[in-house]
Amino acid sequence: MTKTLNNYAADQWVASTTEKLPVLSAIDGSPVAQAGSAGLDFAGMLRHARDVGGPALRAMTFHARARMLKALAQAIMARKEELYALSASTGATRVDSWIDIEGGAGTLFTMSSRGRRELPDDVVLIDGDLEPIGKNGTFVGQHVYTSLQGVAVHINAFNFPVWGMLEKLGPTLLAGVPAIVKPGTATCHVTEHAVRIMIEAGVLPAGALQLIVGGVGDLLDHLTCQDVVSFTGSAATAMKLQSHPVIARESVRFVAERDSLNASILGPDAAPGTPEFDLFVKEVAREMTVKTGQKCTAIRRAFVPAQWLDAAEEALKARLGKVVVGDPAQEGVTMGPLAGITQLNDVRAKARELATEAKLVFGDIDTVQVQGAEAAKGAFVSPLLFRRDDPWTAKLVHDVEAFGPVSTLMPYKDFDDAIALANRGLGSLAVSLFTYDPQVARQFVIGAAAYHGRIVILDRDSAKESTGHGSPLPMLIHGGPGRAGGGEEMGGVRGVKHYMQRSALQGHPRSLSVVAGRYLAGAPQPEGEVHPFRQRFGELQIGYTLRTAPRTITLDDIEHFAHFTGDTFYAHMDEEAAAANPFFPGRVAHGYLILSFAAGLFVDPAPGPVLANYGLEGLRFVKPVSPGEAIKVALTVKSKTQRNDEYGEVRWAVTVTDSADELVATYDLLTMNAI
Amino acid sequence: MTKTLNNYAADQWVASTTEKLPVLSAIDGSPVAQAGSAGLDFAGMLRHARDVGGPALRAMTFHARARMLKALAQAIMARKEELYALSASTGATRVDSWIDIEGGAGTLFTMSSRGRRELPDDVVLIDGDLEPIGKNGTFVGQHVYTSLQGVAVHINAFNFPVWGMLEKLGPTLLAGVPAIVKPGTATCHVTEHAVRIMIEAGVLPAGALQLIVGGVGDLLDHLTCQDVVSFTGSAATAMKLQSHPVIARESVRFVAERDSLNASILGPDAAPGTPEFDLFVKEVAREMTVKTGQKCTAIRRAFVPAQWLDAAEEALKARLGKVVVGDPAQEGVTMGPLAGITQLNDVRAKARELATEAKLVFGDIDTVQVQGAEAAKGAFVSPLLFRRDDPWTAKLVHDVEAFGPVSTLMPYKDFDDAIALANRGLGSLAVSLFTYDPQVARQFVIGAAAYHGRIVILDRDSAKESTGHGSPLPMLIHGGPGRAGGGEEMGGVRGVKHYMQRSALQGHPRSLSVVAGRYLAGAPQPEGEVHPFRQRFGELQIGYTLRTAPRTITLDDIEHFAHFTGDTFYAHMDEEAAAANPFFPGRVAHGYLILSFAAGLFVDPAPGPVLANYGLEGLRFVKPVSPGEAIKVALTVKSKTQRNDEYGEVRWAVTVTDSADELVATYDLLTMNAI
Repeated sequence: MTKTLNNYAADQWVASTTEKLPVLSAIDGSPVAQAGSAGLDFAGMLRHARDVGGPALRAMTFHARARMLKALAQAIMARKEELYALSASTGATRVDSWIDIEGGAGTLFTMSSRGRRELPDDVVLIDGDLEPIGKNGTFVGQHVYTSLQGVAVHINAFNFPVWGMLEKLGPTLLAGVPAIVKPGTATCHVTEHAVRIMIEAGVLPAGALQLIVGGVGDLLDHLTCQDVVSFTGSAATAMKLQSHPVIARESVRFVAERDSLNASILGPDAAPGTPEFDLFVKEVAREMTVKTGQKCTAIRRAFVPAQWLDAAEEALKARLGKVVVGDPAQEGVTMGPLAGITQLNDVRAKARELATEAKLVFGDIDTVQVQGAEAAKGAFVSPLLFRRDDPWTAKLVHDVEAFGPVSTLMPYKDFDDAIALANRGLGSLAVSLFTYDPQVARQFVIGAAAYHGRIVILDRDSAKESTGHGSPLPMLIHGGPGRAGGGEEMGGVRGVKHYMQRSALQGHPRSLSVVAGRYLAGAPQPEGEVHPFRQRFGELQIGYTLRTAPRTITLDDIEHFAHFTGDTFYAHMDEEAAAANPFFPGRVAHGYLILSFAAGLFVDPAPGPVLANYGLEGLRFVKPVSPGEAIKVALTVKSKTQRNDEYGEVRWAVTVTDSADELVATYDLLTMNAI
Repeated sequence: MTKTLNNYAADQWVASTTEKLPVLSAIDGSPVAQAGSAGLDFAGMLRHARDVGGPALRAMTFHARARMLKALAQAIMARKEELYALSASTGATRVDSWIDIEGGAGTLFTMSSRGRRELPDDVVLIDGDLEPIGKNGTFVGQHVYTSLQGVAVHINAFNFPVWGMLEKLGPTLLAGVPAIVKPGTATCHVTEHAVRIMIEAGVLPAGALQLIVGGVGDLLDHLTCQDVVSFTGSAATAMKLQSHPVIARESVRFVAERDSLNASILGPDAAPGTPEFDLFVKEVAREMTVKTGQKCTAIRRAFVPAQWLDAAEEALKARLGKVVVGDPAQEGVTMGPLAGITQLNDVRAKARELATEAKLVFGDIDTVQVQGAEAAKGAFVSPLLFRRDDPWTAKLVHDVEAFGPVSTLMPYKDFDDAIALANRGLGSLAVSLFTYDPQVARQFVIGAAAYHGRIVILDRDSAKESTGHGSPLPMLIHGGPGRAGGGEEMGGVRGVKHYMQRSALQGHPRSLSVVAGRYLAGAPQPEGEVHPFRQRFGELQIGYTLRTAPRTITLDDIEHFAHFTGDTFYAHMDEEAAAANPFFPGRVAHGYLILSFAAGLFVDPAPGPVLANYGLEGLRFVKPVSPGEAIKVALTVKSKTQRNDEYGEVRWAVTVTDSADELVATYDLLTMNAI
């Protein structure tokens, strides 16, 4: 009897009693598990996420959610071998599984550290600068992001059962939004176990994560404007889902990441014999065979200058000839089977379509030599390289994706032609260019970037550290226009914002400061008895202000500073030359003298909670200071971010004014303060 | 014979020969013009925009496009009275027309200045920081935006024939994307004339702007992934357009801004007698009547604490009683007719629906006293105030929008109830809250922001400078989730990005620097004979670097600097106390001493092209400097932005290193340099 997979609905593990979808081994077709979601209360799952999971996540700050992500990643890593064991039946090699499992955990780790570094320890995320509206500063604008109050529905592809879930879950949970995950059925036993590991880690609030192994039933009928559907898979399914009437009616956010006809281009400078030529051949072969070509970022179309078409074909064939197809459990096997017979039949059918337009120059559509397994029982396929000598009269090579180790080699006439051919895919997730000429790279980006979500420029100097054409990274956006679905995922904090709503706030800075959790110019600046440098991190109130006494900057000070530092710039030293400068009335104080004197005015010297001045942001010298003029400083607590149990960062708004109360300089000062 | 309006297709003014849609006066129903687009070659218009307009716009930099916007705005302003004259027949008062015409030009002016201030004088827009990938920095990531290579199709509403076009045209043209504008037919004669003014200004490249007065025919059938549809209007039309199969198939960007059931809330602290109560009453009445309530941001639902419901009703009725309905050309008229009889019939039908649920407490659905016009001939309607005492058992008041001077007053129980009621609109463009308590404002934003595109918090201190509940501003986003369409427009440069594609670039910093048009860490830093301060703006090459000799910082220097500036912080003065600090090995140099000495090392003092140090960004003190340690500086040209004919800004990447070549401090220095 095979294992029955469970759904995780409303914090309960439940199996479908009526539905039994078989999950089969890619190696030998034997049953691995059975799945099913029929009978689930899909509307109830959405309600549970909205009523229980969402409020719990939104009650946590970004930092608390980020720590939760780290704990989830640690749980996955601690039990990764259980996942590797399950992954074997999907046809994945150890390297394929590593990308999926450890790559998935790595994505959570990255999102966790990004969240703690780039997001506030709060629930409101500020977007952009304060926008002045009224002249007197009593009515201003400030954009913020807040968490959507609905559910993220993740409909994932079968090829990366762990990574495919975690790359979406990281930004979603960091945004404070609960998720319902629906994996591709062919590999859903691996996803189910990964969910189990995360639930058993005990760090997720109730309702934060639910799982559907099987169809989504009437789930979409119950979506609202606070929900997000994030789909990865085929264009056909994406279109079907996106056309659901509720999507348009309720303006449900629909993020699609669809397979695309990704291209790779050998630069016009990358002749046979150059390192870039060799790198191109290696990368095309690698992208064809890693994960048996079942990657939505894999290279499907390879373009080379026409005169090097034969050379490229020969080099690629030589490289593909070394691929060993078989059961990845066997020593020496470098490419496993496709994920299942359904996938195999689909790849063969698509390859036959391509063969009507292009010449098969490597491999055989119907037969393949297999090591350590019975070819007829598993989903094995040979790498298939096609060649088409006139790309512009062809259609299928640009439009039909065989989701396996399949690619078509084609020539281009000149570099504008190469750009046009790259764009002929009508939108892709990733395109790569092999060139050592930065001007070629710039020409390509300007001509092609609008059609591609990620552009990889590879050369001899970057090859060693390159992560390759096909690897999405958590800090970079993943997605692309057109055929690729028009969606965007990850990209560090960018991905978090897909699960939040941006709103423009307008009002008095007094209100908006409290709303945003940071001092905004024009808000109250209360003063007190205690110097702010004598207050611990936790005691400092946003807006608390120190106003210093004035200090006159004399000509002697300027002379002295100039000779001491060596900065004898004429604007400080030569009255006549300075006056001829369009910005200065005559000799003026050094900017750094103003900064240094400002610090002298506000620093409280004895040991105390302020540990270090670690930086400065947005310094602008607004008005020059002539000798004899007096400056004074207002130092205001702008925002605070705790870093660990010992200290936190304090951002201070600093304004330096002159005796006419006009602004001389403004900046944010950053200090590290003891908790 | 009435005037026949022309389409502007492929740089030709052409009238439909077969279609004659009447445009009628809102005042007396007399014919004003006739419109029609039947017979246009819509696919040809798209082709013209793609093949002629797009390439011309993309060949211009952001700054060149921004200057073009300014010229367009100036052209509108120079001929504004022609537009005011045409606008009168739409029922607009002078104030209504001012919002439309001068507000529209103002939006272009703002986008122009934002573009020149915030965007580079280039065609590639950098997004975010360099993303390190490899440890040695030979493979890095950088996000950029490039112009979409398609067409923006703007399908606009009838209520703001000029502003409604210009608020979209500004970001579109600034992004380098050509537009096809289709205004609402009821007021398209005003739009047609505004387009004429812009074309006659002679600053737009061929193919940059086209106009359709009438239906869009088969235009949507020919869209691709490089096109954007930006729709403003009813939810029903939006859904119809969004469901067009090409939209999903090609992942066409679809931005919708639909009417929404915007709410306004009287805060729990804003009792009758407070300034906030009076402001609320004034604003609700104003939003009902400005533009005769034909604003997608108008207040449709007004919520007050239950105990003040009667007081609010009385105050609102008193205020509405002063409204004078009639021909805006007449002295004393404060509210004109609706835009036409179609609109009048719709508003009356919707008001009758509302009357089944709510009590009409001001006005009459079918009759209105009209000044200076014949009520029966024009599209006149009375302000209509409804009251519903139990908002939660009602449905229509939250779901049915009468697009006229119509609003419903309702009570709330407590503030959580107020938030829930605001969100019951299921997504809105704008919500306002009248409170003097910032904590109430924060509670509201956290609870409600996810449902609203803009939140206006009004109180006694902001009232004077407030632009009000219903006014979108070019620097703030305009749009909202759910019912409001899920789109987003404007928001300064944010709006420009809606017409561009974000892509992640990966490669060696050497290539990416050239692509991005700015020095990125890790790119070559060529040195030369000439000090960079001796090179004019135009001569400075990106990446050009000055490396200085080292300078030792002595304990005497530190002592001296401390006493000179007054900054005697213990980390610089007291060996024992400094060593007890978690960040310092013992006494260390002041950060500002390092900055000042660094300037002393790289500054070339004699008069030359460098005019002023005007600021500094992203300063981080990475490693403390102990007495006896020597620092040296690398100063690299990072980017350049010309400001006018005389000077431009230069951004320098500065790194300060110690004798072990370890990083001490890093920052961007900003100078103003002569051209």
